[in-house]
Amino acid sequence: MTTDQINHPERLFPSNPVIRGITSELYQTVRNLPIVSPHGHTDPAWFALDEPFTDAFELLVKPDHYLVRMLYSQAIPMESLGFTANSDAPANIDSRKCWRIFAQHYHLFAGTPSQLWLNYVFSEVFNLQKRLNESSADLYFDQINEHLRRPEFRPRALFDRFNIEVLATTESPLDTLKHHETIRRSSWQGKVITAYRPDPVVDPDFEGFAANVEKFGHITGEDTASYSGYLAAHRQRREFFKSMGATSTDHGHPTAMTADLDKAACEALFNKAIHGTCSVNEAELFRAQMLTEMARMSLDDGLVMQIHPGSHRNHNHRVFTKFGRDKGADIPQSTEYVKALKPMLDCVGNEPGLSIILFTLDETNYSRELAPLAGHYPCLRLGPPWWFHDSPEGMWRFRRQTTETAGFYNTVGFNDDTRAFLSIPARHDVARRVDCGFLATLVAEHRMGMDEAANIAQQLAYKLVKKAYRL
Amino acid sequence: MTTDQINHPERLFPSNPVIRGITSELYQTVRNLPIVSPHGHTDPAWFALDEPFTDAFELLVKPDHYLVRMLYSQAIPMESLGFTANSDAPANIDSRKCWRIFAQHYHLFAGTPSQLWLNYVFSEVFNLQKRLNESSADLYFDQINEHLRRPEFRPRALFDRFNIEVLATTESPLDTLKHHETIRRSSWQGKVITAYRPDPVVDPDFEGFAANVEKFGHITGEDTASYSGYLAAHRQRREFFKSMGATSTDHGHPTAMTADLDKAACEALFNKAIHGTCSVNEAELFRAQMLTEMARMSLDDGLVMQIHPGSHRNHNHRVFTKFGRDKGADIPQSTEYVKALKPMLDCVGNEPGLSIILFTLDETNYSRELAPLAGHYPCLRLGPPWWFHDSPEGMWRFRRQTTETAGFYNTVGFNDDTRAFLSIPARHDVARRVDCGFLATLVAEHRMGMDEAANIAQQLAYKLVKKAYRL
Amino acid sequence: MTTDQINHPERLFPSNPVIRGITSELYQTVRNLPIVSPHGHTDPAWFALDEPFTDAFELLVKPDHYLVRMLYSQAIPMESLGFTANSDAPANIDSRKCWRIFAQHYHLFAGTPSQLWLNYVFSEVFNLQKRLNESSADLYFDQINEHLRRPEFRPRALFDRFNIEVLATTESPLDTLKHHETIRRSSWQGKVITAYRPDPVVDPDFEGFAANVEKFGHITGEDTASYSGYLAAHRQRREFFKSMGATSTDHGHPTAMTADLDKAACEALFNKAIHGTCSVNEAELFRAQMLTEMARMSLDDGLVMQIHPGSHRNHNHRVFTKFGRDKGADIPQSTEYVKALKPMLDCVGNEPGLSIILFTLDETNYSRELAPLAGHYPCLRLGPPWWFHDSPEGMWRFRRQTTETAGFYNTVGFNDDTRAFLSIPARHDVARRVDCGFLATLVAEHRMGMDEAANIAQQLAYKLVKKAYRL
Repeated sequence: MTTDQINHPERLFPSNPVIRGITSELYQTVRNLPIVSPHGHTDPAWFALDEPFTDAFELLVKPDHYLVRMLYSQAIPMESLGFTANSDAPANIDSRKCWRIFAQHYHLFAGTPSQLWLNYVFSEVFNLQKRLNESSADLYFDQINEHLRRPEFRPRALFDRFNIEVLATTESPLDTLKHHETIRRSSWQGKVITAYRPDPVVDPDFEGFAANVEKFGHITGEDTASYSGYLAAHRQRREFFKSMGATSTDHGHPTAMTADLDKAACEALFNKAIHGTCSVNEAELFRAQMLTEMARMSLDDGLVMQIHPGSHRNHNHRVFTKFGRDKGADIPQSTEYVKALKPMLDCVGNEPGLSIILFTLDETNYSRELAPLAGHYPCLRLGPPWWFHDSPEGMWRFRRQTTETAGFYNTVGFNDDTRAFLSIPARHDVARRVDCGFLATLVAEHRMGMDEAANIAQQLAYKLVKKAYRL
Repeated sequence: MTTDQINHPERLFPSNPVIRGITSELYQTVRNLPIVSPHGHTDPAWFALDEPFTDAFELLVKPDHYLVRMLYSQAIPMESLGFTANSDAPANIDSRKCWRIFAQHYHLFAGTPSQLWLNYVFSEVFNLQKRLNESSADLYFDQINEHLRRPEFRPRALFDRFNIEVLATTESPLDTLKHHETIRRSSWQGKVITAYRPDPVVDPDFEGFAANVEKFGHITGEDTASYSGYLAAHRQRREFFKSMGATSTDHGHPTAMTADLDKAACEALFNKAIHGTCSVNEAELFRAQMLTEMARMSLDDGLVMQIHPGSHRNHNHRVFTKFGRDKGADIPQSTEYVKALKPMLDCVGNEPGLSIILFTLDETNYSRELAPLAGHYPCLRLGPPWWFHDSPEGMWRFRRQTTETAGFYNTVGFNDDTRAFLSIPARHDVARRVDCGFLATLVAEHRMGMDEAANIAQQLAYKLVKKAYRL
Repeated sequence: MTTDQINHPERLFPSNPVIRGITSELYQTVRNLPIVSPHGHTDPAWFALDEPFTDAFELLVKPDHYLVRMLYSQAIPMESLGFTANSDAPANIDSRKCWRIFAQHYHLFAGTPSQLWLNYVFSEVFNLQKRLNESSADLYFDQINEHLRRPEFRPRALFDRFNIEVLATTESPLDTLKHHETIRRSSWQGKVITAYRPDPVVDPDFEGFAANVEKFGHITGEDTASYSGYLAAHRQRREFFKSMGATSTDHGHPTAMTADLDKAACEALFNKAIHGTCSVNEAELFRAQMLTEMARMSLDDGLVMQIHPGSHRNHNHRVFTKFGRDKGADIPQSTEYVKALKPMLDCVGNEPGLSIILFTLDETNYSRELAPLAGHYPCLRLGPPWWFHDSPEGMWRFRRQTTETAGFYNTVGFNDDTRAFLSIPARHDVARRVDCGFLATLVAEHRMGMDEAANIAQQLAYKLVKKAYRL
């Protein structure tokens, strides 16, 4: 066995020979399907401006909070990874030095999806076939940087090479979407669309909420000092996002709580929210109400709704105050759905025109709450394993714990949910391999015919996601 | 590989050849053991009257909420499945049309236990060997209906053919048990027994609770306006159920909460309950107290107690108000046992004569709470994976997460818990296959000898259930 | 297949031939590494006095609450296992009779880790190769007792034979550590160290808390009637424990709750605690505060901190009042970490000098809370699967659910956490076999190279634990 091949063609296939053969056969039928990426956090500026990426470290390590958190957990100071305290000013980073630190600690990622993804990128994108470690650090750094200077490694060229059929980014209602406009006006054929993520004007606990709502009024011309004007601003802005290709909204809430309050209660809550006088529970209730409002608007304008609940954001106080948001310190929490979603479902849960995609960081809900809910309500679908669970073992758990109760057709295929553009093909490839492995197990145990498995493999890799996200 | 064989002889056997061989060897020793079905929801009228079943759709699809919920989740209206809003009047159902809709969507059930069970029924009972789909819909419908008209497809004949040693139904204390009487007086030798399910007179939130308690008084001649008379009525009715074969009681509560209040508190609570003035917490407390009362009565009369907690019943408000109970919208909830059961266990937990069988819809409790509790308290046993978890993956999780802490002998074998009579052999067969597969894994990893595994396979398929349910 | 070989050389290796070969290859490289046992509950008197163990039953069964609980769960009275109600006076036990009862019920342990460990002990330590059952009971009893009378079966000789490099016991701050002193002054080279377990003087709910704190003052000469004196007493006592080899503290709390109160609040709470006037919540808050105090002291004196939360101790009221603590009735509970640990982490979570090892009885936290926390905070590490989860399936779940998010290097290898001295090699052997099996799976699926796996196997079996516990 060659032990230093970093991206083996049969990686992730179950090693039981019976299953491996079936997995391989199924995988061949889906491996080259186009990538549909309906939810993620890439920067539209890349595709609007099409400038070369900076260097290996700035592209692959620094913005990847999976990598930063693991390095920090082993006592590597944030400063040695190029982060500067309390400043947005570009740090004077010695990228090569930072890259060497990363390479020296690459063994920390053994057994993690990050290493799977990176090995795919190194091998498939940059033609690096030996393992990254301290001694190969400079070779990697130089070879990647050399590639990044070539025209065929610019964002649009990579997008085309990756065979991406459509890629959604995620923007705040306050965003002008100018990069999306640029992309749409350009001659480039790549399909990059936006998604409506209203947290900054929906969550009273969001930094600058009141100012955001005021700005929301300026942008839309609505009177966002009143609840009805505020709702009208949403409606209008959703239409604008649709004109920039959006087919979905996205909601990142601490819990899955929904509410269906009467008009007076909504107005009173909204007033407290914009005056910064909400209690903790009132802020939660306002967010809860807004999920139901968004669902109602989705009934009208057809945008698919995504709910991503259950993250305790910026858990590390010192890292947050010193280095800011999104530094790998968001921690999942126990999440409840059955009671939480009931007010919204009582309101719109039986509407055939509505589509709500549920995500979770709390895997205990797969079999207990989410599969039973999605296996009954016509509007509900299960999003793929999210975040830390976007991993081989996470995907196996998802399929094993949801399929028997929700089936395959109440799930929506895969989405990568990443800002790490280069990892997108790697992530979809992992999902395709694991799904084929799961299907192969069912075939090998005579729980499914090979023709059924082949059909479902197509669904999971390509068809379900297009249908669910209306692409 | 033949891809359209629907009921392969080696289905569900692990595909690893080492384990498959051992599984097959073990399975041969249990496959033909009689079926002991100690808990379920078949209709005793079938066996009392022994009339032919109506047709394929009315028998196999409409009453099966696993099927209805999945079809509804994919936006198939309840009305196209033969349900009529707000009416118990028999709908004018076009069964063939409904069956075609079901057949057309049969792919939705890929990977679900429903499909496993149905394929077994189609193949073993109705001799249908090709897959059900749109094009075979009529063939299926006609062939099944043709069979159902034959004498050997009447309920009693099927019962005998299924090799059922004993089958328990579940009745309310208000039931006259007249069908059970008919069966017992008949010349037919099939053993159909009842079980005491007092929810309608125990749960203050049950529809018509006060009237039920009043009727309970009429039936028993006890003064059910007083707590002591109410308890006496239970005692008396339990004796009557015992005379109709009952060996167990069953309790479907929202939580596992128990209580052990003093007499005055019980009387006060009961008074509020029958006057409909219980708060939410008081209703919960009354149910909690009743579990302890039932346990005390079990000490006296020897009835085995089953607790089925954790379902949020009729979660879909619109479906419930329009079409009524049991339409596939019961959703599991997070359930706690350690604190909840303590009052009852403090009271009776060390009594060797008592047997309490615990079920759960919250699999997180298998390893955390249930196996540790059952591995200590002499009165506690673990029921098999329940409801959505009555499935191959659910069974694997149950064994993997309970065996190391509770062993095999604190579990009670399998029960089918179904109203789908024809699926009973299929369900027991799935359990036998999975248990043999689990044991085979232990043998293959030298964690158990083959002779030990063979003995335990007998226990799990046949012996433990008879002992646990005192049959 | 020989079905009655009790300790097969390939036990626990996955049976898939591809994986089994790799597992075996990896296992050969770690099977003979020295045992590092950084946390457990053996009695230091054994190694201080080096007296022969009494007999098979007193050594192997009676003190093992895993065994007692399972026997009790099957209605075997505590009295037949040698326990006497309400008395510390040595019972007049007929050990042979008790052993026969145990042997007769040995089948109850099929599939449990207890049986794996005992079979190892029987086979490797006492050269018994046939299965224990009713008919071999006397043979076992006599042969084990005969061995125990030999000099090479005394505690120190077994310690040496077991190749134990270091063994930690756990003592209360009120302990004189006289046995540790004796060991250190002896000519024997075995390294037995203590660990600081302050629960008796930290938990207001502990039996005799106020008297314990008073005694704590006498021992240390500090004024433990004041909070500052009480903290000083801890500091002093920790130094004393360090002088007896301690490198760690250990904390067994009902929850993982931490607090960081101001001085006045601490003093007020402490006053209530020593006067026995704490409410349930205040007792919890005092324990919470003490975790943060202990973490602060660890920053100063370098002791590694272990937190073992989530056990409902002595759940069976009747067994507790009749037979006392630790009779197998401790039951795990749902445990929360994300909010609970935040006050302590806000205070010390980014200190590179600090090491806190987290344990859990609630496996739902592996992927949801613990791996994300340990994969970010530099002070946090994950302890191995604890207690009921110290088992083959428990270990597989731990690795499968933590590795992708926390990696291997944020875990700390294995500890046995046992008072069953003879089982220590068996337990480490199980961990090595399972970890090698897990790594082999990754190798077989091309998620890791063989050289990487071999390196990590060394880390998990030997290196990480020494580093984490500063041994």
